[in-house]
Amino acid sequence: MTERLWSGTAKLDPRVEKLTVGDDPRLDVALVPFDALGSVAHAVMLSEIGLLTEAECRQLCTGLWRIAQEASAGDFAIDPSQEDCHTAIEQRLTAEFGDAGRRIHTGRSRNDQVLAAIRLWAREQLVALGEQVLELVEALRLRADEFKEVSLPGYTHTRQAMPATLGFYLAAHAEGLLDDLRWLETAFAHVNRSPLGSAAGFGVALPLDRARVAHLLAFDGVQNNTLAVQNDRGKSEALVLAVVAATATDLGRLASDLIWFSSDELGYVQLSPQVTTGSSIMPQKRNPDVLEIVRASATRLRSLQHEVANIYGALPSGYHRDLQLTKRPLLEGMRSLSDLLGAMTAVIESCAADPERARTAIKPETAATDALCADIRDGTPFRTAYRRIAEAPGQAYRGEVSESWRERMHAGSPAQLNLDEIVERAKKEADALRERKARLTAVWRWFEEMAT
Amino acid sequence: MTERLWSGTAKLDPRVEKLTVGDDPRLDVALVPFDALGSVAHAVMLSEIGLLTEAECRQLCTGLWRIAQEASAGDFAIDPSQEDCHTAIEQRLTAEFGDAGRRIHTGRSRNDQVLAAIRLWAREQLVALGEQVLELVEALRLRADEFKEVSLPGYTHTRQAMPATLGFYLAAHAEGLLDDLRWLETAFAHVNRSPLGSAAGFGVALPLDRARVAHLLAFDGVQNNTLAVQNDRGKSEALVLAVVAATATDLGRLASDLIWFSSDELGYVQLSPQVTTGSSIMPQKRNPDVLEIVRASATRLRSLQHEVANIYGALPSGYHRDLQLTKRPLLEGMRSLSDLLGAMTAVIESCAADPERARTAIKPETAATDALCADIRDGTPFRTAYRRIAEAPGQAYRGEVSESWRERMHAGSPAQLNLDEIVERAKKEADALRERKARLTAVWRWFEEMAT
Amino acid sequence: MTERLWSGTAKLDPRVEKLTVGDDPRLDVALVPFDALGSVAHAVMLSEIGLLTEAECRQLCTGLWRIAQEASAGDFAIDPSQEDCHTAIEQRLTAEFGDAGRRIHTGRSRNDQVLAAIRLWAREQLVALGEQVLELVEALRLRADEFKEVSLPGYTHTRQAMPATLGFYLAAHAEGLLDDLRWLETAFAHVNRSPLGSAAGFGVALPLDRARVAHLLAFDGVQNNTLAVQNDRGKSEALVLAVVAATATDLGRLASDLIWFSSDELGYVQLSPQVTTGSSIMPQKRNPDVLEIVRASATRLRSLQHEVANIYGALPSGYHRDLQLTKRPLLEGMRSLSDLLGAMTAVIESCAADPERARTAIKPETAATDALCADIRDGTPFRTAYRRIAEAPGQAYRGEVSESWRERMHAGSPAQLNLDEIVERAKKEADALRERKARLTAVWRWFEEMAT
Amino acid sequence: MTERLWSGTAKLDPRVEKLTVGDDPRLDVALVPFDALGSVAHAVMLSEIGLLTEAECRQLCTGLWRIAQEASAGDFAIDPSQEDCHTAIEQRLTAEFGDAGRRIHTGRSRNDQVLAAIRLWAREQLVALGEQVLELVEALRLRADEFKEVSLPGYTHTRQAMPATLGFYLAAHAEGLLDDLRWLETAFAHVNRSPLGSAAGFGVALPLDRARVAHLLAFDGVQNNTLAVQNDRGKSEALVLAVVAATATDLGRLASDLIWFSSDELGYVQLSPQVTTGSSIMPQKRNPDVLEIVRASATRLRSLQHEVANIYGALPSGYHRDLQLTKRPLLEGMRSLSDLLGAMTAVIESCAADPERARTAIKPETAATDALCADIRDGTPFRTAYRRIAEAPGQAYRGEVSESWRERMHAGSPAQLNLDEIVERAKKEADALRERKARLTAVWRWFEEMAT
Repeated sequence: MTERLWSGTAKLDPRVEKLTVGDDPRLDVALVPFDALGSVAHAVMLSEIGLLTEAECRQLCTGLWRIAQEASAGDFAIDPSQEDCHTAIEQRLTAEFGDAGRRIHTGRSRNDQVLAAIRLWAREQLVALGEQVLELVEALRLRADEFKEVSLPGYTHTRQAMPATLGFYLAAHAEGLLDDLRWLETAFAHVNRSPLGSAAGFGVALPLDRARVAHLLAFDGVQNNTLAVQNDRGKSEALVLAVVAATATDLGRLASDLIWFSSDELGYVQLSPQVTTGSSIMPQKRNPDVLEIVRASATRLRSLQHEVANIYGALPSGYHRDLQLTKRPLLEGMRSLSDLLGAMTAVIESCAADPERARTAIKPETAATDALCADIRDGTPFRTAYRRIAEAPGQAYRGEVSESWRERMHAGSPAQLNLDEIVERAKKEADALRERKARLTAVWRWFEEMAT
Repeated sequence: MTERLWSGTAKLDPRVEKLTVGDDPRLDVALVPFDALGSVAHAVMLSEIGLLTEAECRQLCTGLWRIAQEASAGDFAIDPSQEDCHTAIEQRLTAEFGDAGRRIHTGRSRNDQVLAAIRLWAREQLVALGEQVLELVEALRLRADEFKEVSLPGYTHTRQAMPATLGFYLAAHAEGLLDDLRWLETAFAHVNRSPLGSAAGFGVALPLDRARVAHLLAFDGVQNNTLAVQNDRGKSEALVLAVVAATATDLGRLASDLIWFSSDELGYVQLSPQVTTGSSIMPQKRNPDVLEIVRASATRLRSLQHEVANIYGALPSGYHRDLQLTKRPLLEGMRSLSDLLGAMTAVIESCAADPERARTAIKPETAATDALCADIRDGTPFRTAYRRIAEAPGQAYRGEVSESWRERMHAGSPAQLNLDEIVERAKKEADALRERKARLTAVWRWFEEMAT
Repeated sequence: MTERLWSGTAKLDPRVEKLTVGDDPRLDVALVPFDALGSVAHAVMLSEIGLLTEAECRQLCTGLWRIAQEASAGDFAIDPSQEDCHTAIEQRLTAEFGDAGRRIHTGRSRNDQVLAAIRLWAREQLVALGEQVLELVEALRLRADEFKEVSLPGYTHTRQAMPATLGFYLAAHAEGLLDDLRWLETAFAHVNRSPLGSAAGFGVALPLDRARVAHLLAFDGVQNNTLAVQNDRGKSEALVLAVVAATATDLGRLASDLIWFSSDELGYVQLSPQVTTGSSIMPQKRNPDVLEIVRASATRLRSLQHEVANIYGALPSGYHRDLQLTKRPLLEGMRSLSDLLGAMTAVIESCAADPERARTAIKPETAATDALCADIRDGTPFRTAYRRIAEAPGQAYRGEVSESWRERMHAGSPAQLNLDEIVERAKKEADALRERKARLTAVWRWFEEMAT
Repeated sequence: MTERLWSGTAKLDPRVEKLTVGDDPRLDVALVPFDALGSVAHAVMLSEIGLLTEAECRQLCTGLWRIAQEASAGDFAIDPSQEDCHTAIEQRLTAEFGDAGRRIHTGRSRNDQVLAAIRLWAREQLVALGEQVLELVEALRLRADEFKEVSLPGYTHTRQAMPATLGFYLAAHAEGLLDDLRWLETAFAHVNRSPLGSAAGFGVALPLDRARVAHLLAFDGVQNNTLAVQNDRGKSEALVLAVVAATATDLGRLASDLIWFSSDELGYVQLSPQVTTGSSIMPQKRNPDVLEIVRASATRLRSLQHEVANIYGALPSGYHRDLQLTKRPLLEGMRSLSDLLGAMTAVIESCAADPERARTAIKPETAATDALCADIRDGTPFRTAYRRIAEAPGQAYRGEVSESWRERMHAGSPAQLNLDEIVERAKKEADALRERKARLTAVWRWFEEMAT
């Protein structure tokens, strides 16, 4: 079981082998079902163009399905001596079926094979992340609605600025996340193109039907130039991670808001004991560890993005082994965002508000700008009113300060949240995701059918 | 002329003032026409809702147009004591028109004002960058067509891999750049939303018609939640720069290919003397400095993106002065990409090929994989053929090695470049850009009309 | 005046020239005196080995001193057509002295010339930064002493943890900055080696006395291998910036503490009106803009460091034009740290404490750990005491909660600040800096003497 | 075995727990012996000040030594429910010894406990890395000596510049690595200070003898201010990683040189088959994968450094859970550098030169600068000679071009490598490392003695 896919008689220096094998045996486990899926489509096409017999094709379909099932159940291990999942799968198929296994690599290189596996994996993750984002958007919208009349000080520069509401803050985060979905879609479109047939980057002297494979795998089409396909390695990972990191950063900023709003000194929000942790030395402590980890994880995801960008950005065209190091950041990065979304949804669903503390924290001078607007409505030029009120901003507002936000009624203001717009945008996104997911599910069903 | 927009009697410590004023007076010069444009739309809306008289509105339109004209001609300076363009413009209008000037800030903060100016500026840059990308794509396609039969060794791992052509390489870069355009569009859609009316992030107690302003400025719509608008500061800059950096990185990799292909040892490509520079000590030298600067500038742009992401990512909701530091990276980053695109177009348009050197550099064993495919076509299983040929790869191919790429005829291979697909994709993008540009031009025409 | 130092007849494409000239004419102005200094030492050595006549040497010394003086007075401009300061200086000397000017580049390349200028500049900056750090350390120590009995809540996780003092916080920052000085020294030792004689990286066929030049310039010695010298380009900039960024980050964290401690809700510290700024729309606002800029600037400096590291890290040995892009980050980065140190010193010197607010903010349960220690002193095992007190942490402490920190008396605790240790460490650093500065000053005096 | 160290009755939401436990159970295994070591010193001091009985102290010493032994043998597992090694160790000691175990946390927080474990671990790694650097320096020096007359073209801008030798290149890398050792020493001095006694950052109300613990653990002293200790978390990791990354980057550049020098087109160096790998599709391929992984790993290490810097840089003073995310980068980063050093040593030790290919590759015009120096020696002014030779640089040199480097005889030139200086510098470093290692070994011996 330990023969590598490449020729060569010398034994690798162990100091070198440690580095070249690296993490792949561990990381690749997640890719096995996707590599199997890509291989099935490739095999079906090979049989259609006469490079596999029908019997061989059937063998491979059955064998690959079995491998995919085992891998999903955690029963398919990759030995370090096999280097990666591609070798492990080919060796297993060869052991089981002989020549059929020896033909599975026909017209392929590990270069396009891993690209296919990663793209098939990534597009499903992108759909799943989209769904999780929508879950959190919905959680935020519900709490925004619930807390839309909970007055609190609105802040700029970590200083009280103007009265606002807790619902207004939460709705802002919901909208920010909806923006991220547009980028997730662009990322999906970028990766959902078939790399198969590019081989080592220069194509092969075989009449591959690349469009057919793309169709079978529900790709939006073929990525044409076979070198462009290889040049997309690293680039697509970096672009996907840019979107992943931007989304995580939105979570990190939500976490920062909550850390501060739930602090001893502000206390506008109360975190559930189910999401806070304690100290080993200070008996009284309840800490927002989860929010701090979300915040720091966002920094980490930005770093993974930058790392991948700098790895591929230093290279000329074509495959270089440097690109191997883009796999782990992608896999860990996308999984991390999924964890962060889950945790933030738990935090939002379980948090409570303290309307009394929030309301009484508002300082009178924060209504100065609303007072200023009254002067403007009465005809005073803005700058004139500003200078007058600046002299005694705390006395300027004549109404109930903590309710002054109710006077701001144009679109998007605290008194006019337009939560329906969030519902509408979310619905549109959910529809698109559902349609996409259906297409991806159909591919797996087809795989299963081919195997039986 | 030196009164600031904010109240306060204390004189700033000069060590502090140096830092808080920073680069703005210099940087903002480019934003003046866009700030004026945003202000005109705002003024027109204010007059429509009765907060400006028609006469005041007319004064402001005229004054702002004049300012925009002066700024475009390089005749509008911002004094450090004025801090930024917003102050400089308001002071000028107040000096000229009195109360009309004092009313221009009605319902606005510098926070949403600068956001508007930056978005108006950035969307035009995005269109211009799109056009420049298409120019370079066209230059690459033309040379790809010209050099599509120039055989050279194709590389992986900086090692000869399989015979390919120079045209194939150039076409790969053209396709990569076309992919970038999709991201530039997403960036355009992200920024082309009106922030006006968000004020300091909490709206104002005035009946602003935000949709009207958005319409006048040809934004795709209003960005709703006024805090979400402020939270987009930094985030949109980072996302735009992610796309800018990805595009620059594609240029950097093209530069790397050319540096190597034009080296003394390879010499497949000859750079024009118009694009190479010399040494102060070595009389014989001609160096590809421009390509090295492109490569390093791509690294810089990735860094600017990451910098902005880390600046805004460390903050809670709402405006913080940290965000001021996202302006310069955006402005310098977008301008830098424009310079890089211009330089690379110059390089591509002027380079030459040396078909003889390129052809003779190809080593016989690089055709081993094509020989292997012949075996496969004859029925040998892939892995069996691989192991057989591995024993003497240099003798495996029976034809003219440097032409072996002609046998690879599936889509996207060296023998099947599909340059028409590039033409088609480019045309679609050009149409979209033209439409967009027309809308933006119309806004400036409207501004001019309002002023006269 | 527009002849470049390198040969070549073709006119550069303007799109390329824009990129290759870049910022140098503007940036290099600061380097002129240092380039002149390096050139003088080189000239003296050349005359000693017989490659310059004594008369020529005297001409060059006089001419270079004049140039250095003009540059320091802001009267030496570099034309874009001259590309950089080295060309500008050589052309000026040639215009003035003929062959003496034509000989100044003897045995040099711009590669080692700019390295020398940058190192001479950077070592003076490092000394100046060290002095500024010590100024801030002293300011912090003085305030720490003044506020060493101002009780406030100590925080972990942005939550009240244990009672502490404002002086304790400020002293912690002073100690952190003293740690940075050790790194600044290592940076100084790294750059204070003579690169001269490395030429383009391969030495020259002339009997240069490299040690003599190193001695004249008060370098600690010669950096030996001439290729190692070139390979240090980028590397030394990145290492210096790593230290610069770490120091800036310490300032950024001090800024974060002050932003929070001076917030509306905490108010333990009051920032002077001389360091806070206002809002264009909210008349009541006083914002800690300067602290936010310090915080974001630290992020920027970390980014500049990483940028430089990624630029040089992508390259093989020897000079590449990519390295040109490491100059601006170094210059801007070191200057920025100087500005940040100045501003933070201003903030610290002018801030005030509000002991009453700080004391009353302390929550009773923060003394739980001090209560726990009493139990331990009485013989209860730690974990047993912890679990008992956890049941009612707010009632556990029997004394005055806000004074509980006085019971923590081991070294480094709030009740035992050891400010003398800060004084002592600072003194040692100041002595080392003074000695270093004297050596550097002596070099300039020698330059002046040589010129007269 | 599953009780956490902190109080609290609520069950954590599983989505939150996944995040807060994170990688610690896996990562901490390496820290167990170091945590045990720190605990022993702490226990001995506690007994000396009367907070532990002698019997309890003996129990703890024995128990901790057993734990350290088990952990070193891979037999000490940390259950996810235990969160980290500190909890696992305390629970084990309590199960075994009752109250003695309940007292081990006396006067400590996990905050200072983990700091101690990490510093004790890191300082040993720093010494080991220093030794590995010296091994590679020695390998480079030996090959430099062996190849010091192997002529090859010296390069700037990836273009032939001046004749040089392979030995000259290798010696340059040896010198660069020696420079890194200075920084590794500064890193050692930075981390080799005792954090114990800082507890949660505010000290404890117990008469801890911090100096005694520092002495027992062979720290250079106590880090004084207890908040400064906590503020060093993240900062010290970032500074250590800055040095680690700089060293890795030197390896990456050596790798880049070798990739290029061993390419099909240059072939000056031959990589051993024991360090190269093959392709899954191209039978003829031998790729320098290991060098590409070194290059990309250096990029990754720079990224880890920047990640850690951005995580801690965004925080105010005191512990925040964000800092948890600095542990993995430090551990993985230092281990990675160790792997890279091992692999590069293997590559250098096994590589061969092809003197004939290297010599014949040199182009005649590369000797133009040496020809120019001859003119200078004859009295022609540099710039005059430069312009004359520029007209026909290929004909300028009158001797054997590939030997022209022999004329460059000043210090550090190809003809004057000064390899003895490398020997001398290496010896000094080796002595320092040996002394340091002896001190650290003595501490472990003391631990063993205390346990028996």
